[in-house]
Formats: sequence, structure tokens, C-alpha cells
Amino acid sequence: MSDANDFLKVAREAREAAALLGPLPRAPKDAALRVIADALVERSAEIIAANARDVERAGEGGTAETMIDRLRLDEGRVKAIAQAVREVAELPDPVGEVIRGGTLPNGLELRQLRVPLGVVGIIYEGRPNVTVDGAALCLKSGNAVLLRGSSSAFESNTALVKVMREALAGTEVPAGAVQLVPGVTRDSVKHLMRARGLVDVLIPRGGASLIQAVVEESTVPVIETGVGNCHVYVDAAADLDMALHILMNAKVQRPSVCNAAETVLVHADVAAEFLPRALAALAEAGVTVHGDERVAAFSDAVVPATEEDYRTEYISLDIAAAVVDSLDAAVAHIREYGSAHTDAIVTGSQAAARRFVARVDSAAVAVNASTRFTDGGEFGFGAEIGISTQKLHARGPMGLPELTSTKWVYTGEGHLRTAEGTVIAPSGS
Amino acid sequence: MSDANDFLKVAREAREAAALLGPLPRAPKDAALRVIADALVERSAEIIAANARDVERAGEGGTAETMIDRLRLDEGRVKAIAQAVREVAELPDPVGEVIRGGTLPNGLELRQLRVPLGVVGIIYEGRPNVTVDGAALCLKSGNAVLLRGSSSAFESNTALVKVMREALAGTEVPAGAVQLVPGVTRDSVKHLMRARGLVDVLIPRGGASLIQAVVEESTVPVIETGVGNCHVYVDAAADLDMALHILMNAKVQRPSVCNAAETVLVHADVAAEFLPRALAALAEAGVTVHGDERVAAFSDAVVPATEEDYRTEYISLDIAAAVVDSLDAAVAHIREYGSAHTDAIVTGSQAAARRFVARVDSAAVAVNASTRFTDGGEFGFGAEIGISTQKLHARGPMGLPELTSTKWVYTGEGHLRTAEGTVIAPSGS
Repeated sequence: MSDANDFLKVAREAREAAALLGPLPRAPKDAALRVIADALVERSAEIIAANARDVERAGEGGTAETMIDRLRLDEGRVKAIAQAVREVAELPDPVGEVIRGGTLPNGLELRQLRVPLGVVGIIYEGRPNVTVDGAALCLKSGNAVLLRGSSSAFESNTALVKVMREALAGTEVPAGAVQLVPGVTRDSVKHLMRARGLVDVLIPRGGASLIQAVVEESTVPVIETGVGNCHVYVDAAADLDMALHILMNAKVQRPSVCNAAETVLVHADVAAEFLPRALAALAEAGVTVHGDERVAAFSDAVVPATEEDYRTEYISLDIAAAVVDSLDAAVAHIREYGSAHTDAIVTGSQAAARRFVARVDSAAVAVNASTRFTDGGEFGFGAEIGISTQKLHARGPMGLPELTSTKWVYTGEGHLRTAEGTVIAPSGS
Repeated sequence: MSDANDFLKVAREAREAAALLGPLPRAPKDAALRVIADALVERSAEIIAANARDVERAGEGGTAETMIDRLRLDEGRVKAIAQAVREVAELPDPVGEVIRGGTLPNGLELRQLRVPLGVVGIIYEGRPNVTVDGAALCLKSGNAVLLRGSSSAFESNTALVKVMREALAGTEVPAGAVQLVPGVTRDSVKHLMRARGLVDVLIPRGGASLIQAVVEESTVPVIETGVGNCHVYVDAAADLDMALHILMNAKVQRPSVCNAAETVLVHADVAAEFLPRALAALAEAGVTVHGDERVAAFSDAVVPATEEDYRTEYISLDIAAAVVDSLDAAVAHIREYGSAHTDAIVTGSQAAARRFVARVDSAAVAVNASTRFTDGGEFGFGAEIGISTQKLHARGPMGLPELTSTKWVYTGEGHLRTAEGTVIAPSGS
């Protein structure tokens, strides 16, 4: 149980730090972020040395070279991480923004303000830069952060957190606001998931199985991120040149990301004209097409699609394909098989676009544009903590405002509520 | 397992209905609500007869008369329920509201719209009017609803849902959008809590133990409502006449509700002047004071307070009381013992008000006003589905907008994302 006690200790430190950090205005938070950025650059040798131990261990363990490359830090990468922190400092502070407000008929002044969530837990598998990005976004939005990275990056993450905390010691932001969850076993994830009351929200960033496990087991509220089974629907009224370019961009421009297309649906009226061109272009780009019989009729290279294909986020040079008899059939397919991330329609018809937008129930719907634009940077957020595919709290790309909650404040002059309405208390002074 | 199958059947019906209801504009939804209101009045005899069977069973079971009164329906109460439905029809439709939007530098038109959540589950213990209120608020916001009321009101709820569904049969809103969860055992609650993917959000309305159980066990996202351990803090700079009136209003105007005060904290500097008057007024109103030693010094009637008292939502004529040495000590007490519902400060000092508002981390903070104003009706929402005491998605009184999610829509003219920036696809027509 010492593991559990270690966890409780850091979670309570984070909670105390959050109480001090929450009310801080923008200037001291930005100053602290710049101190962190400087420290990361100054101490990059120490960070790179720790990272080298992770890289060596991964090499001995037989990790694939592409994965090792994702893990590796060098001077240029550390500088880029520091630069990203400086960019977060430049972003507007979401805390204190008045979202709604006014004077009620009884004279009470009512405001709804953005406030920090409190303590944010991030569980991630990715590169060590998430350790710094996540901490910077949380600090900027007034939140303490509990970081639980992958065991493969443990030495790197430990060094990065040490540098950040020691940098904070000279600032108004309490060092306790940045915490690495102790331990690298699955138990440390369990502690995070059961820390209701100490942790306000958990954000899992990683593969579908990690996210599924957290959603199933966590009593702390979770924001689901990332799984993208995105569709491109080529409508009967599509400009087929445009449709072909959008399909190819959505599939092959960067196949490994969540906003890449995984399924193409083609209206029957244009299948004979569109599919031969699309199948040739996809083959040319090295994409394997998993299609139904009506797609396969146009090429011997089409692999027969299973139900499972239509549910799959390939994140590879594969795509599922089907011919549909109507826009409504495309919508029904997307609602049944999609992951509600981003779905696109290519059409010249205003009525078709309107119907598709109203009926596809996804975080983002694109009209005559590639699915690749669903991204905090593209949307102009300046930073992104992930892309939510759930409906509560945040949906789609999450920027700094999505790391806040709200608080109602009402101010009166002795306002009392009675069965007959508001009465103002007599004042003695 | 027939119970589980029965549940799945209604949940799937709700999901299908949600897909049809979601895109409906305001007019057909409002028309359907008015048809429901008319049907409730026309068929009130049938509803009252069903209710009489619940009332009879409760009487035989030895239920307290106050509880039976909460359960009982008569013609006047049915009329009032129907009137509330008509008032929901008058409220603005949250669906389709553009929350953010603009044209990105690359020409993409980006909008964030409010959309229905989908299928909302409500678990409640209260009066049968929640059955109709909950259904009306969900329909108005484009959501299908799964209602799971208390077994004591089963006949009443069955009759109310039957009338609502039969009324919907003549409208554009699918009758499947209103569903009573089959069965009255705990199992039916379990099915709801495990229906991730079929149910988008669960709202438990009831006592702390119900809410705790749902939060612990649900894999469906939950919005916690209702527990209110509200504080009134009398600052050193308070107008003590105003403070006394606010304290008494917050405690005794309606002690059974969640925004009633449960603890009073008094700054040491004004304790000797304020507490004798406050203790006399509370005693006069029949309130038992559970106080620390510094409070007890002013009256023999004070009952010694335990740690537990400071954590308790009495919802009765009881109040916990303590003397604090500073505003910060009051804030620390509230953060430690409160339920983050509503906490009030009475003070003439601008600096004290500002510090209290910034540091008390509650859904609502009142300055020189009674805690009783934290209420959807008082805030001008026109309707309230509950008061959220959690930080994600909704915090404080929840109106119709809190029953929605959002969707990003972006429209281009063949927009493609490349490593060098946006490129517009060539068009063939």
C-alpha cells in the first residue's frame, strides 16, 4: 500500500497547489511558464541524458525504431518543447472570462465566470513532449496537473518534471502544481482513476484500449479523446474532381492521425464515374481498399470488406468503401459505424449539405473540405490538449477554455428571497 | 435476463427516436408539447385513478403522511403540471444556437452549434411531476428521455408516460422519444448505468446516497445534482443587521431545499456583537444550533458540534456554527467541509468580497445576498432540470442549454490541408 500512500501524497499536494494557483491572475502564470521554458533549454543536457537511458532500455527491449524515434530527445527537440511553452504563455488566459451576465429584475448582479477545473489528471502513452505541453496548458488555465506517462519514457518524464518543478520554485506558481504520478505499474493508473474528490477530471490520451479501460473503471469524470473513424461521403451532386482531391487528402496526407479518413461512401448515381478514378488514385498512393461488392465491381484489387472493416480506425494506408443509395443511407452508415469524430460531405447541393450537417451526429462535420482540418491549431485555438469525441463538457478540439469550469457569482445589497418575491434587508449602518 | 432485454428494447427505441427528433426545428417540438399539455388535462381522471392506487399502496405500507402528500395528484396538480409543459414550449430553443463562429484565415467558414445530447436518462425519487417536467425539458432540447422514477409512483408514472406517448402519436415528435424504464427493481437502475453508447448522460435527482451510487457505478457519463451544504460567512466588515436577515432567510425561509444554509461562520471580531443576536433569532425560529466552543460561549442552548455536523446537509431546522479568525479561515473551512453548491459572504468590504469570490470554489458564490437565489427560476432560465454540483459540462442551475452538446461545422470549397498550408482543390464543373 505504500504505492497508494505515495499517490495520495502527491494528489493532496496537487490539490493544495491548485487552491493557490486558481486565483492567480495572468501575469505571474505567464512569467512562470517563461521561467520553465528557459530552464528546459538551460538544462537540456540533463534531460537528454535521462532520455538516453530510456532510449537505451527501449533498444535492449527490442522496441521498433519508429517508436524509439518518437521517444528520442535531442537539443533541437528540447528547444521546440520550450518554444511551445512560450507560445502557451502568449495565449489569452481563459480564467475569469465572463461568459454570461447581467442584472436580474430584482437588482442582483449575476455573472458566470470561467474558473479552473482544479486538478487535472493526464494519462498518456506518447512522446515526452506531452509531459511539458500538458503541464503548460494546465498551469496557464490555473489547474494543477497529475502526469502519468508511459513507463518507456519514465526517466525522461522524471527529468522534465524535476526541471519544471525546480523552475517553479522561484515563481509565484507553487511547484506542487506539477506532479508526476509515482510508480510505473498499472496500479498507479488505478489510483488516479479512483481519486474522486482529489482529481477533478481525467484525460486519457492514447490508443482505444487505454481510453476504453479508463472510461470503464474511472470514478473520476473522464474526457474521452481521439479515436477517429472519419468518413468522406461523395454525394450525387458532388463535384467529382473536388471529391477525389478531398478523399485523397483526407486519406493519405497523414494517415496516422485521428482526423484522417477511414471510410469512403459513394452515392450510387456517381459510383460508375467516381469509383474507377478513386480506386486508381488510391492504388497509386499505395492504399488498400476494403470494399463491398458494388465497389469491388470496379477493380479486382478491392479486398472484400467485413462489418469490422467499417468499424475500424486503420491509421494506416487502408480504407473501407461502400456504395450507398441515398444521402440518408450514408448518414445511417455513419451513425452506425462511425466514431463521431469528423465526417465530410462533398456536394454542390445546398439541400444535401444542410441535411447531412443536421443528421450526422459527430464532433465535427465538414462540407467540401478535408477531414484533416479538425484540429485545435487549424481552428485557431493556438494549443490543443486533445480532441474530445464525447458529448459532455467538450466536443471536438479542446483548447484552454475546455480546461475550465464555471462559477456563478451574484452580488446584492441584502437580497432576501420570500414567497412574495425579493425583499432587501434593512441595513444597520 | 428478460428484464435486460426489455431495457435494451426501450433504450434502442429511444436512440432511434433521438435521431429523428434531433434535427426537428422549434415549431413542431413546441406544438407537440402543447398537445401533451392538452392531453394531460383531458385525461386527468385516468391519471388521478392510477395515482390513487399508488397512494393506497403507500398508505398500506405505512408511508408518512408528508410523503404521501408529495405523491398525491389531484385535478389542480395535474393542471399545474400541464401548465409547466406549456411554459417550456414558450422558452427559446437552445438547439442550433451558434456559440462561436467565424471565417478562418484560409477561408473555411467555422461554426460551433448547440445540438441535442441524444438520449438522457433521469433517475429520480421525487413527485410524479418530475416525470412530465423531465420529459418536456428533454423534448424541447431535442433529446429522447429514459425515465426511471421511484417504485412508489410506478402506477402514476406509467399513466403519465402513456398519456404523453399517445399524445405524441399525432405529432411530428416520435412517441419513442419518451420512455419509462421497465421494471421497478434496482436492476433497472443498473441497466441504465451500464448503457454506455445507448444513453448519452444520466442525471440522478434525489438523495445523496442515490447520487453516490450512480456516480460510483455508472459507465454512462453522470451529471451530479443537488447536495447543498451551503455556508453564510459573516465577515468582520459585515453590516450585522443585513447579516442577520440573510442568515435567517437562508436558513428558515425553506429549510428543506438544497440552497438553504447549513452552516454559519462568524469572524471573531464581530462574534461578540453578532452571535447573541443570531442565536436568539435562530432559537426564536426553532432552529437548533450545533456550535463550537466559541459559539457555545454565547448560549447554553448550543449543542456541541462534531466534525460530522460541519459536513452535514441537514435540510431541517438545524445549523452548524463556528467562529473563525479570518476570512481565509472561513474559506478553508468551506473548501474542507462544504459541498461546493452555494456559499455566501456578508461584508461591506470590497477587498473581502473579491478575495472570498476568488477563493471559494463553489458552483455559486453570493455576496450580500441569501443563498436561496441559486435557482434556475431566479436566474431567469425559465426551467431547471436540477442544480449541478460537479465541474464538468454544467455547474450550478441547469436550464435547457445545459441539456445540449455542441457540434463544429466547417464549410469550404475544396479545402485541402498540406504541410505548406491550405490548398483549394481544382474543381471540375
